[in-house]
Amino acid sequence: MAEGVTPQSEDYSRWYTDVVQKAELADYAPVKGCMVIRPYGYALWENIHDALDSRFKATGHENAYFPLFIPMSFLQKEAEHVEGFSPELAVVTIGGGEKLEEPLVVRPTSETVIGHMYAQWIKSYRDLPVLINQWANVVRWEMRTRLFLRTTEFLWQEGHTAHETAEEAQEETIRMLRVYQDFAENEAAIPVIPGRKSASEKFAGAATSYTIEAMMGDRRALQSGTSHNLGQNFAKAFEIRYLDRNNELQYCWTTSWGVSTRMVGAIVMVHGDDKGLALPPRLAPIQAVIVPISKTDEEREQVLPAAEDIFKRLQAAGVRVKLDARTEFTPGWKFNEWEMRGVPLRIEVGPRDVANQSAVLARRDIPGREGKTFVPWAELDIKVPEALVTIQKALFDRALAFREEHTHRPENYEQFKEAVEDGFALAWWCGDLACEDAIKTDTKATNRCIPLEQDGGTGKCVYCGKDASEKAIFARAY
Amino acid sequence: MAEGVTPQSEDYSRWYTDVVQKAELADYAPVKGCMVIRPYGYALWENIHDALDSRFKATGHENAYFPLFIPMSFLQKEAEHVEGFSPELAVVTIGGGEKLEEPLVVRPTSETVIGHMYAQWIKSYRDLPVLINQWANVVRWEMRTRLFLRTTEFLWQEGHTAHETAEEAQEETIRMLRVYQDFAENEAAIPVIPGRKSASEKFAGAATSYTIEAMMGDRRALQSGTSHNLGQNFAKAFEIRYLDRNNELQYCWTTSWGVSTRMVGAIVMVHGDDKGLALPPRLAPIQAVIVPISKTDEEREQVLPAAEDIFKRLQAAGVRVKLDARTEFTPGWKFNEWEMRGVPLRIEVGPRDVANQSAVLARRDIPGREGKTFVPWAELDIKVPEALVTIQKALFDRALAFREEHTHRPENYEQFKEAVEDGFALAWWCGDLACEDAIKTDTKATNRCIPLEQDGGTGKCVYCGKDASEKAIFARAY
Repeated sequence: MAEGVTPQSEDYSRWYTDVVQKAELADYAPVKGCMVIRPYGYALWENIHDALDSRFKATGHENAYFPLFIPMSFLQKEAEHVEGFSPELAVVTIGGGEKLEEPLVVRPTSETVIGHMYAQWIKSYRDLPVLINQWANVVRWEMRTRLFLRTTEFLWQEGHTAHETAEEAQEETIRMLRVYQDFAENEAAIPVIPGRKSASEKFAGAATSYTIEAMMGDRRALQSGTSHNLGQNFAKAFEIRYLDRNNELQYCWTTSWGVSTRMVGAIVMVHGDDKGLALPPRLAPIQAVIVPISKTDEEREQVLPAAEDIFKRLQAAGVRVKLDARTEFTPGWKFNEWEMRGVPLRIEVGPRDVANQSAVLARRDIPGREGKTFVPWAELDIKVPEALVTIQKALFDRALAFREEHTHRPENYEQFKEAVEDGFALAWWCGDLACEDAIKTDTKATNRCIPLEQDGGTGKCVYCGKDASEKAIFARAY
Repeated sequence: MAEGVTPQSEDYSRWYTDVVQKAELADYAPVKGCMVIRPYGYALWENIHDALDSRFKATGHENAYFPLFIPMSFLQKEAEHVEGFSPELAVVTIGGGEKLEEPLVVRPTSETVIGHMYAQWIKSYRDLPVLINQWANVVRWEMRTRLFLRTTEFLWQEGHTAHETAEEAQEETIRMLRVYQDFAENEAAIPVIPGRKSASEKFAGAATSYTIEAMMGDRRALQSGTSHNLGQNFAKAFEIRYLDRNNELQYCWTTSWGVSTRMVGAIVMVHGDDKGLALPPRLAPIQAVIVPISKTDEEREQVLPAAEDIFKRLQAAGVRVKLDARTEFTPGWKFNEWEMRGVPLRIEVGPRDVANQSAVLARRDIPGREGKTFVPWAELDIKVPEALVTIQKALFDRALAFREEHTHRPENYEQFKEAVEDGFALAWWCGDLACEDAIKTDTKATNRCIPLEQDGGTGKCVYCGKDASEKAIFARAY
């Protein structure tokens, strides 16, 4: 257990905030609801950025940048959109010392201003599809905030695409949902359930919203990325039209999709424990830390060159490695420090290791002796990358086993209530908002999604008993 | 001359705006003074980002992210700072539907909020130096705006460092100025003059400001990056203190430095011509474009596979290459298009080239036959990268020769006035604000900087005739 970190079992929410701050991922800003992303947290975000960005580019998308400020009148063009976002807006009313004629909204999301630009850029079917992504900050005024999970300002990417046909827009929507799933599972080592949002949970202005839902360490759900088929809603509101192959003017079909710094919170909560963070190797800013161990100056003179040699070998092997040669801290203190910061692999080098021309690898995800192996120096450039692959898989497997352990298939409402006390309930649902609402009032569990992958068959709604053709995931959520 | 582009000689300012829009670097946003950075412009910015970011990391800096909103009271803590920035602020007065108790400023720069955080993070000399950079958007309300050069919102990086001693802060300030010079000259192919700003031109709140100044195609100066030694001004305003090696509380010494999307404007104006952009190969999103040339379907069937083969070879050689196989446009139309977009090298493949197993390389920077060479296919993966290096150097050399041609060393005020009509005047200056002001009123030329590299010796102020120990660059500027 780490100093200054509340145990998960005592208060999960305080554990989370303690870890985020002690590991120096983020800090509270002097502005209500805002955060400062510290260098270690930002390095993690940079790795998330790169892993997503390369996937966007591989699927044909380009990046661009649209303005921070949106005229208030733009939001009002899409009725559902303005209703959904109005309570969360930050509004600029003064610019250059003068009151503005029309107030400017600080973007909560950019469908409107991007829609306005697409209307100017798109003339014909030859201009389609438009596949653009933006990396940006957005602002949603929040009453109750938590570092990374819900902050007034956050960083994200928002993809915005325009297509000729409804089918292409739907394909794009699902393609990007699968890109998010691939990223979450293979980079963040977080198993997710891709699914459709119910009407009550969808994005304000979307035709259909999709989500990837993950189970956190306290068995609550976290919406970790969303992909929206916007139909022609924004195309009609902003006159995004094109001349089709028959020279007739048609409205485009558009999509939008986003992942935010919230993903950092998911990584903390899925993999962390009472010792602190446990980062998936593929995203970890530091994948391996070398801690030299010596009691005397003489020992230090033996150990340090060996540690430096290992550092160079691993750097050459493409490992993001750090050598912690600080003299003002004990090895034990350093072990705790790097465990807190979630470094996947620790490499210990003491006098006996030097004598044996070997080093100790200690896995962050397996405590004590069981997580340790001795490796000859000559094999480190093979064994360390191998260990990182093993740890990446082990983190995913553990998270998946945990989710499966706490996912239930209740056959009646009594079982359902027990299920959502423990984690996820995958239950038949008739599709009625009334059942969703009643369940929420009753149990605080919300409809997280209707999974794309269904068990099959038909059944009876777990709440009302009416015929149901789909199962939904219900859970208490962030 | 390119269609829809005003010639430089007719109206340089319109030429600039035409090129930026026709080449699809940027577009006007629906919000006054804001711009949309289009995918091609953003890809250029991404390359600028990467070239700077790797230099920052190589000099020990880490990235972080601080909030967009700054309490108004923070700006007021540094008297010069608030005076300098007050007229340019965008102010949020409404959040979540309610009037805010304290208005929030949309950051025009982040010294204040970062200073506030540093005061909390820095305890002892062991915590120093703090070397942090931020990539962010900032807002300065501007009355007269121009795409990239002066926009209400722009993208930039801002480095913020804290040090134990005045000497270290000064070293850092100059180190980053030299990093900017290295970037400008070796990546953007823009020769710059690194120098000190006069008191009247320095950053609001700095002890001393440094700049890199470049000459644009219309012989006006553009401040292209700045590095500020902030002394203890912000440390005192925000109580950024540390326990020194004698256990005594001391104020830190801080710096800040920034380069913005304005650099894109510099690249347009330094290298562009009446045909459009001319991008330096190291930053160009597309370094080489392959244009297959065929008149009949039969020819196309020969030419296209060859073009595809060349594309693969060059991609494997690490060239950012594009194959323009569109059938709806003629080769001539494509030549103009890619010249407009400033692609450094065009590769033409026609039926005769296929027969000869060769291709034509055409340089963007040298028009007509002189810029063309025939290269056997087997040598393309060597010759194309070589040509890119040659073009990079040629662009720099041409810009340097142009600047030298239009830089004068006037010995009296009559010569001075002629000099600033033509370009830069490097002249003795006594250091008095009065002379600067009189020169500005008289000639519209401002003191751009006192170059770090001086001619040596002493002389008489070009305006008042008093003793002067330094020369300054005077020019009309953006």
